[in-house]
Amino acid sequence: MEALKNRVLRDGKVLPGGILKVDSFLNHQMDPVLMRDIGREFAARFADSHVTRVLTVEASGIAPAIFAGLYLGVPVVFAKKARSSNVPGEVYAARAHSYTKGNDNQLTCAKEYIAPGERVLVIDDFLAMGEAAGALVSLIDQAGAVCAGIGVIIEKGFQPGGDKLRGAGLRVESLLTIDCLGEDGTIACH
Amino acid sequence: MEALKNRVLRDGKVLPGGILKVDSFLNHQMDPVLMRDIGREFAARFADSHVTRVLTVEASGIAPAIFAGLYLGVPVVFAKKARSSNVPGEVYAARAHSYTKGNDNQLTCAKEYIAPGERVLVIDDFLAMGEAAGALVSLIDQAGAVCAGIGVIIEKGFQPGGDKLRGAGLRVESLLTIDCLGEDGTIACH
Repeated sequence: MEALKNRVLRDGKVLPGGILKVDSFLNHQMDPVLMRDIGREFAARFADSHVTRVLTVEASGIAPAIFAGLYLGVPVVFAKKARSSNVPGEVYAARAHSYTKGNDNQLTCAKEYIAPGERVLVIDDFLAMGEAAGALVSLIDQAGAVCAGIGVIIEKGFQPGGDKLRGAGLRVESLLTIDCLGEDGTIACH
Repeated sequence: MEALKNRVLRDGKVLPGGILKVDSFLNHQMDPVLMRDIGREFAARFADSHVTRVLTVEASGIAPAIFAGLYLGVPVVFAKKARSSNVPGEVYAARAHSYTKGNDNQLTCAKEYIAPGERVLVIDDFLAMGEAAGALVSLIDQAGAVCAGIGVIIEKGFQPGGDKLRGAGLRVESLLTIDCLGEDGTIACH
């Protein structure tokens, strides 16, 4: 996606610790036209995957996921983040560590919103260590449903999440892959 | 909005404590077509309000807000919820009590994403006591910007938030107003 690449190169900021800050257009302030185009691109890439549902996680996955669901014609569910490890029995739950924030979250989804046998497309904004995506796939597994694929906006290609998920046989589509974040602020991506 | 009213009457569930559960189509599982139509309706109602930005709060405000921003042609910002009262200096912050969850949140927005003089439309899913909307208006005030209006999907007309905000001179547009939630599960709305 050329529009995404150009925006990241123009407005993305490299912070210490290999963090790419894109909160001017993606995960605090959001560009609705870009979000729409991203969702449409996900829908196109997974058009033949017989997707019955989109699953994402609050908060920054919601905007791209709602457009993906709109263009695929399927409902969208966002998993909720809970700090507590006490989760009620009527939800599926899986733990995801956030390396950026240095904490663990329980991702939860009400059992009624993923049915056995469904084909669920996972959408998220970032893929780095693969913690959030892996937890979402776990929720799908717990439901007896199938992960039809994983669509991420930005993959950090120098971190192992993408390889780990692909190695597990999952189809991962990244709209942009970051090859390197330079200490001088340069961003290499494709 | 007839489609919204019909959906609430069909799928909404009344829980003890005057809680209307709509997580099958609005704030856990989401119907993308309904979200789009809601966003388009907000954009139509505030078409003459010279809106320069939409402000909502994570997580369930994001879907209606992104569509409102798309149809209005303006950027969307979601305020973040932080449990801690320690907020960094580069954000605006305002406290909102959640009567549903029984806790306080600090809603924060990076200062760079609301500029002085802007006309900001607040979008949220529910209006009951007016805590979240009031906190979002406070963020706008702190920025030296103007609240161009408040659009909520569902207003609990039997709770004081709407009157409070309107009494303060703010324009509040609710797509559906709940008149009464019966103990037998009936929902009266218009």
